[in-house]
Amino acid sequence: MTEYTPTLLDKFSFGLWTVGWQGVDVFGPASRAPMDPVEATHRLAEIGAAAVSFHDDDLVPDDARRQQTLDLFGKALADTGLRVEMVTTNLFSDPVFKEGGLTANDRRVRRYAMSKVLRNIDLAASLGAETFVLWGGREGAEHGAGKDVGAALERMKESLDHLCDYVRDQGYSMRFALEPKPNEPRGDILLPTIGHALALISELEHPEMVGLNPEVGHEEMAGLNFAHGIAQALWHGKLFHVDLNGQHGPRFDQDLRFGAGNLRGAFWTVDALLGGGTDRAYDGYVHFDYKPPRAEADDGVWESARACMRNYLILRERVTAFRADPDVKAALSAACVDELAVPTLGPEETLADLRAEHHPLDELATRSVAMEALDQLALEHLLGVR
Amino acid sequence: MTEYTPTLLDKFSFGLWTVGWQGVDVFGPASRAPMDPVEATHRLAEIGAAAVSFHDDDLVPDDARRQQTLDLFGKALADTGLRVEMVTTNLFSDPVFKEGGLTANDRRVRRYAMSKVLRNIDLAASLGAETFVLWGGREGAEHGAGKDVGAALERMKESLDHLCDYVRDQGYSMRFALEPKPNEPRGDILLPTIGHALALISELEHPEMVGLNPEVGHEEMAGLNFAHGIAQALWHGKLFHVDLNGQHGPRFDQDLRFGAGNLRGAFWTVDALLGGGTDRAYDGYVHFDYKPPRAEADDGVWESARACMRNYLILRERVTAFRADPDVKAALSAACVDELAVPTLGPEETLADLRAEHHPLDELATRSVAMEALDQLALEHLLGVR
Amino acid sequence: MTEYTPTLLDKFSFGLWTVGWQGVDVFGPASRAPMDPVEATHRLAEIGAAAVSFHDDDLVPDDARRQQTLDLFGKALADTGLRVEMVTTNLFSDPVFKEGGLTANDRRVRRYAMSKVLRNIDLAASLGAETFVLWGGREGAEHGAGKDVGAALERMKESLDHLCDYVRDQGYSMRFALEPKPNEPRGDILLPTIGHALALISELEHPEMVGLNPEVGHEEMAGLNFAHGIAQALWHGKLFHVDLNGQHGPRFDQDLRFGAGNLRGAFWTVDALLGGGTDRAYDGYVHFDYKPPRAEADDGVWESARACMRNYLILRERVTAFRADPDVKAALSAACVDELAVPTLGPEETLADLRAEHHPLDELATRSVAMEALDQLALEHLLGVR
Amino acid sequence: MTEYTPTLLDKFSFGLWTVGWQGVDVFGPASRAPMDPVEATHRLAEIGAAAVSFHDDDLVPDDARRQQTLDLFGKALADTGLRVEMVTTNLFSDPVFKEGGLTANDRRVRRYAMSKVLRNIDLAASLGAETFVLWGGREGAEHGAGKDVGAALERMKESLDHLCDYVRDQGYSMRFALEPKPNEPRGDILLPTIGHALALISELEHPEMVGLNPEVGHEEMAGLNFAHGIAQALWHGKLFHVDLNGQHGPRFDQDLRFGAGNLRGAFWTVDALLGGGTDRAYDGYVHFDYKPPRAEADDGVWESARACMRNYLILRERVTAFRADPDVKAALSAACVDELAVPTLGPEETLADLRAEHHPLDELATRSVAMEALDQLALEHLLGVR
Repeated sequence: MTEYTPTLLDKFSFGLWTVGWQGVDVFGPASRAPMDPVEATHRLAEIGAAAVSFHDDDLVPDDARRQQTLDLFGKALADTGLRVEMVTTNLFSDPVFKEGGLTANDRRVRRYAMSKVLRNIDLAASLGAETFVLWGGREGAEHGAGKDVGAALERMKESLDHLCDYVRDQGYSMRFALEPKPNEPRGDILLPTIGHALALISELEHPEMVGLNPEVGHEEMAGLNFAHGIAQALWHGKLFHVDLNGQHGPRFDQDLRFGAGNLRGAFWTVDALLGGGTDRAYDGYVHFDYKPPRAEADDGVWESARACMRNYLILRERVTAFRADPDVKAALSAACVDELAVPTLGPEETLADLRAEHHPLDELATRSVAMEALDQLALEHLLGVR
Repeated sequence: MTEYTPTLLDKFSFGLWTVGWQGVDVFGPASRAPMDPVEATHRLAEIGAAAVSFHDDDLVPDDARRQQTLDLFGKALADTGLRVEMVTTNLFSDPVFKEGGLTANDRRVRRYAMSKVLRNIDLAASLGAETFVLWGGREGAEHGAGKDVGAALERMKESLDHLCDYVRDQGYSMRFALEPKPNEPRGDILLPTIGHALALISELEHPEMVGLNPEVGHEEMAGLNFAHGIAQALWHGKLFHVDLNGQHGPRFDQDLRFGAGNLRGAFWTVDALLGGGTDRAYDGYVHFDYKPPRAEADDGVWESARACMRNYLILRERVTAFRADPDVKAALSAACVDELAVPTLGPEETLADLRAEHHPLDELATRSVAMEALDQLALEHLLGVR
Repeated sequence: MTEYTPTLLDKFSFGLWTVGWQGVDVFGPASRAPMDPVEATHRLAEIGAAAVSFHDDDLVPDDARRQQTLDLFGKALADTGLRVEMVTTNLFSDPVFKEGGLTANDRRVRRYAMSKVLRNIDLAASLGAETFVLWGGREGAEHGAGKDVGAALERMKESLDHLCDYVRDQGYSMRFALEPKPNEPRGDILLPTIGHALALISELEHPEMVGLNPEVGHEEMAGLNFAHGIAQALWHGKLFHVDLNGQHGPRFDQDLRFGAGNLRGAFWTVDALLGGGTDRAYDGYVHFDYKPPRAEADDGVWESARACMRNYLILRERVTAFRADPDVKAALSAACVDELAVPTLGPEETLADLRAEHHPLDELATRSVAMEALDQLALEHLLGVR
Repeated sequence: MTEYTPTLLDKFSFGLWTVGWQGVDVFGPASRAPMDPVEATHRLAEIGAAAVSFHDDDLVPDDARRQQTLDLFGKALADTGLRVEMVTTNLFSDPVFKEGGLTANDRRVRRYAMSKVLRNIDLAASLGAETFVLWGGREGAEHGAGKDVGAALERMKESLDHLCDYVRDQGYSMRFALEPKPNEPRGDILLPTIGHALALISELEHPEMVGLNPEVGHEEMAGLNFAHGIAQALWHGKLFHVDLNGQHGPRFDQDLRFGAGNLRGAFWTVDALLGGGTDRAYDGYVHFDYKPPRAEADDGVWESARACMRNYLILRERVTAFRADPDVKAALSAACVDELAVPTLGPEETLADLRAEHHPLDELATRSVAMEALDQLALEHLLGVR
């Protein structure tokens, strides 16, 4: 079991709020003591992480101790060599944001939300973070008339346009990543999926500065295929960051450790991040955003954190072997997978040519598509029996 | 009960395949006899429809009788005054398309699919249809490696770019409308939601020619809020067409008559189509894409078709009364709904101004958002008790 | 709007934890101040409730002030005339129960859980409550091997058998009601649906003492039809209590006010409680178990509480009118609904008779089932247009 | 790859309708030619099945050729040594059953359904089948008032009571197994889950003759944990048969090959069938009820059939290794899993003893539950890295 040991090259990253989650949920209070961010940083380094991320409130909840906290955290980073690769702003916990942050109906709330984000962009830049995530967990509605969705999208665009301008003005090297989620804690959250967020980005003043931070469980809560989702994001050039965890389909947000939940989905997720056999690969940090189950004590917290990385490494090994297997290459060929990269119309052809040609319909109707065979090969690589 | 009688001004439209559905499903064969399109056209006119739509295969399944069929159908249109407002091509029933149409791995299939669409664009133009819908029900996958999603999106873009060129070259007055769906009949369908389709459109050569034809049930199968979805489509200027029906959340595609299923969702759908209190309203045909339950005989077919329109009219009346009610206006004001249209940053302001200002956090945290009161007013309008 | 005013005869009841919910969720702390149970009792009386219910921890969180709290609460009951119709024990908030209560793997936890329930049975009896609800929100698992489901069911049976014995021994007039839920807060909760709980009851020593307290949202989280569920519970003679609220299908537990969420489902729920046209009706308290949305301030809390009752009264009016409408009676007859109460085999018949008879298959295959017409009548009664 | 070869001892069984599915769905006609039952029997024998099952209509669709068909099929059984272990009656395809079979509102339909079942019980007995499955796919409703659920349950009970009497009268050695499903093809099916069917059985005249045939995908369509479901069925002594396949949560009924879909669920399903570390194990046939995807040609049909068995054997190997691993035993012990089999109250104890004892709440609240560690061990066994 010495294999599957993470190294810095694996670029694993954890939110401080993951191992730091105390277990508060709708049905009960904290089951674990608070975790000091400095301690978390040291322990994450010990188990093999290369970086951390945080919400402002995770790290600097108390203004009076802000500089002292930052100094201690800076020392922990220096001591461990961990990077801060991503920062995000908490616009969802404080009751101020109970009806939204950047898209709250109350303009005063939006102004405060904006100022909170700006302050943290400065902090993120000072720590060298190159990705700034925006998750709008309270941007949404329970009911129909309470939210003018078009106006809310206009405000989202306004906010992002301002934020991009600010980053450009300050000369920061930073990109934004939107994190979609369909629901919870709001009844319906705006920008519910990867697709909706991609669509918004296409309307921005600086679309090149804004991409996505999709989360496995969030897409799966809508019954969507996460690997398909990030493949589409990659096709748009918009997979700026990723949140890995586990989920069992449409239900509450489980935030299981990566590998738990939909295991086949996790295999295809790793495959998609590696490019899925193409050169459209993700090259950012492999970021885990999960919650150790409330029932666990501290031993379970660290067990689950270790397992996130270990499972990624196991799956990466399996995906790599799958893509390298000559039998798989033959099966991909039998399934004509590569043929899809060939344009439907040739460079010299016209639509009239295409309409004029004979189509061998009987042959096409009964042809083998050979996908069960291919999928079984994948399953056997996942299970390690090949 | 003389009220709620549809007129041509209501612009109600039905797919011929709706009342013509014979009841074939995975678990049983047809329960109803085939319906002649000519008869369907006459009966739809009688009950108040203003237009029809069809898949090529619904109308002209047999090439030998193609012209005769078209002549008879043309006469029915002339006799009834119905328009053909939308045409679409069936790229999902023929086993040729079992592994996709425009994004099938097999290039020969894609070429045939393309030629089938082109032929029907000509037909659609000849009948005066201004909207051409593309539903890619078999464009997708059951498993991971069988479909290169990036290549598939490239082919979808290639296809749409060619189709737009063709329409421009021919001088047709026609726009395309993509119809998203998350799954069924494929395990995962490409462009699974409104958002994903909007994102694709932003990458096209002629994005102004391509919009959406969202369907109530398709978004609700992913647990998404349909009114929010079409509000986003309207915000992007992309609600070119709409498919109304009913669904009970994530499960098989029920295609219930409009009004059945999620009734509150139907209320907010009508509200969103009417603009949701803003000027972002839909002005196209109100198109029903539903299936009379397999258990019904012909009486149930026509009962359900009539009920689709009647329910729309009832809901339109209720939505209109809701938006006109002074108590509702007061409640919207109490919930600060209109305030969301006010930019977060004033025209003369800088971000520095905003950061410098005092934020009354305690007051904001405990403020009334007044949304339950507003939503209860909406519910009471829906129920007709106000 | 003076109609729809609740009276004591309506037997409306609220959990103290409903209006008392402070808004703590996974993503944020309390948004509302604690509500004093005495004040809650007075206000619930003012708005028309006939009874309250509570978890032990809602009312008597602090042992030192236990008697004083009970005295004050007793006075509030006396002053308002409200009854305590149901009591339940909180076996899910305290971290002690993080891995279950009556089915925790740790036997010491089970013993404490049992003692906590026993203490509250005494309290419930002293307050005159005749229903004791058991919701096992933490009885379950996130993963496979951690819970021996058979052993857990054995412990559930053991617990219930002991509790029934205790109630009999004490001579209390009290029945138990199990509350099923599929998931949240645990990944998978034991006894996930009405059906699973009914099955367990059939194995108890005193099945007559144990029934169900189904909750609308809990069944709908599994995509199940709540009205069908309670109809089955009534058929088994096991609908001892009911929790009304609203939900939007499979997702997190929304606990919306009754009427919000699945409105047609709410109509059929009220119909089922009233017997659905039969004499299998529910005669207990109409108990609301919902949460005012976290965004709301106190005005929204009381608005939503009032609306729960008001919506029930509106729906009851509509259901009653539906069942009384001669057109509905005719439609029910056309749909042969009453014929289902006629046994398939007559009293004098044998199976051989049945096998020997001629079956008019063609006629049966094409017969009208007339259900769309019936359902449209129901929808129009719900909408108040008849 | 010579390992994982099925033998007769594995007791694998297939429905003739699985490999024989022609690919008809709501959106398209057959994509594969009909498969002769005799050929299917031979090929299933070749790939390692020990038995087959069928609906009457799968085998003997045409009365005129009934005896000849049975003779040929009997010869195929004799030639191959396959058993018929289960028979079931198709009460869902024929439009006669469009509104239900044994619970159709129309009594004539119920009588015909009953006679069809009786005829097939005789056939099943003549072929030596000891399990008779009843799946009521059309027993349900799309809407509220069309079905009196209580009356329907009464008819279900009536039918089962008659059928049990018949089997007893004839001296057949046969048990009935009910197959629950939440929806599809009906909007809501009666007896939607394992639990609801178990509850019904408890009300029968001969409950010992009736058990369950749960299907993986059917429970997962309701978001339920299948392993938990069959563990409850085993606890009630009611797991008479099982249908294995794959599904991706709440959506249409996918009927994927076993192993596809929820892979971790499949691991725990095999574990539960083997007893989950207890002696409550399933000893019947391992029956696959899946559909080769419509896109596949015949090669894919047999590939998927082989894979069902192969995946079961791989998972059985992994489960067995998991349960035998000393590290797992230690982890189970650390998680107190076995302690749940110890009654909460000792044999000599009273409830008063339990109430009087001291409960070490602080210790219990912060204890380690050690479940993440256990689950990670399971995952690593599943992945074959231990």
